Amino acid sequence: MERLTEVGKKISRAARPFGGSHFPDEDRWRPTVAKRLFPLSKVYGLLEPGPVVMVTTALKGKSNIMTMSWHMMMEFEPPTVGCVISNRNYSFEILKSTKECVINIPTVELAEKVVACGNTSGRGVDKFEAFGLTPVPASIVAAPLIDECYANLECRVMDAGLVAKYNFFILEVLKAWIDPTIKDPRTIHHRGRGAFIVAGETIKLPSKMK
Amino acid sequence: MERLTEVGKKISRAARPFGGSHFPDEDRWRPTVAKRLFPLSKVYGLLEPGPVVMVTTALKGKSNIMTMSWHMMMEFEPPTVGCVISNRNYSFEILKSTKECVINIPTVELAEKVVACGNTSGRGVDKFEAFGLTPVPASIVAAPLIDECYANLECRVMDAGLVAKYNFFILEVLKAWIDPTIKDPRTIHHRGRGAFIVAGETIKLPSKMK
Repeated sequence: MERLTEVGKKISRAARPFGGSHFPDEDRWRPTVAKRLFPLSKVYGLLEPGPVVMVTTALKGKSNIMTMSWHMMMEFEPPTVGCVISNRNYSFEILKSTKECVINIPTVELAEKVVACGNTSGRGVDKFEAFGLTPVPASIVAAPLIDECYANLECRVMDAGLVAKYNFFILEVLKAWIDPTIKDPRTIHHRGRGAFIVAGETIKLPSKMK
Repeated sequence: MERLTEVGKKISRAARPFGGSHFPDEDRWRPTVAKRLFPLSKVYGLLEPGPVVMVTTALKGKSNIMTMSWHMMMEFEPPTVGCVISNRNYSFEILKSTKECVINIPTVELAEKVVACGNTSGRGVDKFEAFGLTPVPASIVAAPLIDECYANLECRVMDAGLVAKYNFFILEVLKAWIDPTIKDPRTIHHRGRGAFIVAGETIKLPSKMK
């Protein structure tokens, strides 16, 4: 396949970055949708509502997924995200050494897989295979995008100064992808011990806030 | 009134911390509910779903309110919260000098007031008066609690090391209060430019995550 060659990889990533997968999975819950580039200036609106996200990392060709709720926006542009990843997590060391990850934002249809990823460690299991999720090459970072998530943010660590003290990473979002068919994503928001709020109705108010 | 004396203040704060208000307001939208202490070990479940919050501060007896969505949990116990408050905000200087604030968590009934607080600066207006919100003395910090919010977290700045670079404050939650009558709070979650998701249904999954 074209994308398996070095040149082809670059071409296909640019031309249709969501067109393929490392591990084609016949049981996928919905077909691949061609995602679109999403403006970096609007990324804050994806993350500041506090959705549970799935962070992917990769080391020496092996990818991992972890579930995360401790993240926040820190700057509009370039979109800057703070997050805490426990040093007990397998992803902690990978992120610390590779300085790259993808923040993948799931909707409620994926809730069981999100929890499954949170309940297991990548040390012993390939979570993409175990939970039927589809890794797709990112355009800039080595970590894969999770195809089933409605949005994916390619990130690079821009400040690791508070990692030692607080496990706190500051990430820059380099590139954002979105499924253009999902207008009101039913994101899930953790309230502790397996209880999640599902995003309900959307209201609009005349806010001057960005 | 007893709470206006120094001794009385301490007694009444301990005995019924939500029993009075600085500025009684006849137009209040719902009666005061006696709030209860909320275990610090469970505070993360209030903040990690990413609700819009209202931060109160006080300087020389004058209180202010600001609306905030850029916050995250950083540690379970003591509950540690990271937040970005722009140095253009009136609250920034107050928090920096007093090192105290209250994080107040509103539900959708307060959405218009939340946005109104976000659209105005405390430099020129007393937001409690202007928007009919009720300040109630906190038990530890000088900043008031907003009575109408279903939960209130008294906080102290524990690390200001990243304030200069990122306007990033790390807060310790010292005391938490909750309205025990609200089981599934319909919090609001900002998606940008005045669009908010309202917390919808709650789902439960067998998570090992705390």
